[in-house]
Amino acid sequence: MDTTRFLTPQAARQQKGLGELDSLVQCGWDLLGEEVALPVALLSRSALQNNLRWMRDFSLASDVSLAPHGKTSMSPELFQMQLEAGCWGLSLATAQQLVAASQSGVSRVMLANQLVGKRNMQLVADQIREGLECYCFVDCLDNLKTLDGFFTHQGLSMNVLVEIGVPGGRCGVRRADQANTLCRAIGQFPSLKLRGLAFYEGVIHGDPAEQQIAGFVEQNRQLLLELLEQDYFAPGEVLISGAGSAWYDLVVRHLDPATLPGRIRVLLRPGCYLIHDTGIYAEAQQQVRQRSTLACDIQGDLISSLTLWAYVQSVPEPGMAVIGMGKRDVAFDAGLPAPVLHHRPGRAAPVPAQPGWRLVRIMDQHAMLECGAEADLQVGDMLSFSTSHPCLTMDKWRYLGIVDDDFRIRQLIQTYF
Amino acid sequence: MDTTRFLTPQAARQQKGLGELDSLVQCGWDLLGEEVALPVALLSRSALQNNLRWMRDFSLASDVSLAPHGKTSMSPELFQMQLEAGCWGLSLATAQQLVAASQSGVSRVMLANQLVGKRNMQLVADQIREGLECYCFVDCLDNLKTLDGFFTHQGLSMNVLVEIGVPGGRCGVRRADQANTLCRAIGQFPSLKLRGLAFYEGVIHGDPAEQQIAGFVEQNRQLLLELLEQDYFAPGEVLISGAGSAWYDLVVRHLDPATLPGRIRVLLRPGCYLIHDTGIYAEAQQQVRQRSTLACDIQGDLISSLTLWAYVQSVPEPGMAVIGMGKRDVAFDAGLPAPVLHHRPGRAAPVPAQPGWRLVRIMDQHAMLECGAEADLQVGDMLSFSTSHPCLTMDKWRYLGIVDDDFRIRQLIQTYF
Repeated sequence: MDTTRFLTPQAARQQKGLGELDSLVQCGWDLLGEEVALPVALLSRSALQNNLRWMRDFSLASDVSLAPHGKTSMSPELFQMQLEAGCWGLSLATAQQLVAASQSGVSRVMLANQLVGKRNMQLVADQIREGLECYCFVDCLDNLKTLDGFFTHQGLSMNVLVEIGVPGGRCGVRRADQANTLCRAIGQFPSLKLRGLAFYEGVIHGDPAEQQIAGFVEQNRQLLLELLEQDYFAPGEVLISGAGSAWYDLVVRHLDPATLPGRIRVLLRPGCYLIHDTGIYAEAQQQVRQRSTLACDIQGDLISSLTLWAYVQSVPEPGMAVIGMGKRDVAFDAGLPAPVLHHRPGRAAPVPAQPGWRLVRIMDQHAMLECGAEADLQVGDMLSFSTSHPCLTMDKWRYLGIVDDDFRIRQLIQTYF
Repeated sequence: MDTTRFLTPQAARQQKGLGELDSLVQCGWDLLGEEVALPVALLSRSALQNNLRWMRDFSLASDVSLAPHGKTSMSPELFQMQLEAGCWGLSLATAQQLVAASQSGVSRVMLANQLVGKRNMQLVADQIREGLECYCFVDCLDNLKTLDGFFTHQGLSMNVLVEIGVPGGRCGVRRADQANTLCRAIGQFPSLKLRGLAFYEGVIHGDPAEQQIAGFVEQNRQLLLELLEQDYFAPGEVLISGAGSAWYDLVVRHLDPATLPGRIRVLLRPGCYLIHDTGIYAEAQQQVRQRSTLACDIQGDLISSLTLWAYVQSVPEPGMAVIGMGKRDVAFDAGLPAPVLHHRPGRAAPVPAQPGWRLVRIMDQHAMLECGAEADLQVGDMLSFSTSHPCLTMDKWRYLGIVDDDFRIRQLIQTYF
């Protein structure tokens, strides 16, 4: 088997045929037998399947729809899994991401941002012309005018959601009267269709955040009902969209579809549930379960699916191992990776990493493991690490392997950052 | 002109022909006329040429050779520029990077790390078999044994440099006697050729670092002379290699080739001089000039060549602009990007960003600009930003544009992370 094909993304150059992934499904490379180059990023197939199932069950139990944020993975293969698990569509952050998703077969997307810039608008317009169902956020009159000018000229229309923000937060109008004015204005722009409201509660970090977020979602609910009464929305379904991966239970609690008019669809945009982690999102999920009976009633829980495997690169002094993995390979902005398994090539199976081992520093291409002077670690040993903040690990890799529980790589997936 | 080809790296998917860059040279897209999608990463052609010339002049004046660290850019087009400017070869950090460089036409590489792992060794061996001249570092007997076993079995030989480290630093033996033992041992491994010593002074952060680094380089010089006397090196040229982008003047001062035997080549491995920045490397270069008459005697100075262009994405409240650029686009581990130019599409030319504007926070896809309540900034305005730490911006992009001083994109270059 030609394992030079799986050099890791870094060396795609000579892999002219690597785009044809069908032939690589069931490749079966043996990780523990050193059939792949390290460092490498792997996703557990069973964990991915578990997470798809868990979030689908949650959305069904709460009667909401999912437009998972595709920016986390930017992987067509994972997009496809999410759509097959019943997601309404995908959210994206930029015009370029939207194009990549659309070109990979996603037919309905939410651009969870204003669409800004002539070339960016053209990219999106071209996808709409090819059949993409597209929505974007708006938060100011200037953008409405520019959008309408552009899409009118293109002979196309654009579905917009007015974004509601919070003072000191990120994008979005700050007050209900601004939202009202904007919604009224949209009616004057023939190419724009007002399809709903959007928000992102994840920028609220007050103490207690929970109450503030609950209040914010509640305000948005009230605003939605008022706007419905004023008949500002285009005919048909009306969307209200919020929720990252940390507070989706609260959003669902305060936007219970059973208490809303029938034409409203509640649309969540979590990005990280599919890959998950053992860091900030594991902690957020633990808090979801503390707050939400609904979440606890769903069988099982989300599981971290992403691991990095790297070699012990040097053991230059007692108690310190240099690992061949760095900022080039893994997220480091929300806690360093945590050692999980230790494998010495030639042995039958990996063993758990020692509890005291931990990364204390990370450089571009190396990380320093504090391991105690007596650690049985030698150059050439393999270590696996779990991560925190999947978005900033995924964007380091052009190819990731999907592994079965036997540590054989069964499939390669691509990313399009 | 088909500008959908230059979506930014994120959407390479549909750009099946984008690998054929020859046809894109002289593309001429007008940045200020919004002919490219933002955010985008651009390199100034004149700054690149200046930096190539400056470092070439420095290396000629100090009679040392350059093996620039390719891990910074991982761009074949930039590698080619460096080789054409007279560099001895390129340094790389991993086997995968080495393959990418070799496959892109680099014929002499320094793997500035131990070569660890069966598959990684096979990747390197395959390149050597195709004609690559390859060197790697070693710092322990275990690695020597494994390397020799592997390369003997392959019927190949490997050039090695013993790496000297510092206590609490990164890789490398800590003491001269360890280096001596290792050098002696190498003679017992028929497939391994001892070609010199290597070190990396950039891990020394003491106060004063300068004296400590000077002492470390001086020790390595003494060790080299002792090892030469003991005749441990393979016949021919002997390499001593150190120096990242921050302390190369000190390395050169304490390893002046004029004071060393003729068979010694001093090889510097700076990674960041070509792209440079306005952050940590600008500061380091300022210190180089304070320490080094030689550096001051070279005409001009290094210039930051890399800028990110992004749109004002939202101006949701007075004094705050949300920029359509985030951790997905630019390094954030050594200071946030700094606003440089402000352009409103339709105007003739960009103007300098206001002195008070600064990024105060960065998220995955957004950054928050503090700009004062009276700032003349609106959604759709374009801002350029200079950066700190080029390595962690370069690895966010699969394609970068080379711009002339007229803000037209003249060429696309690729990266292979």
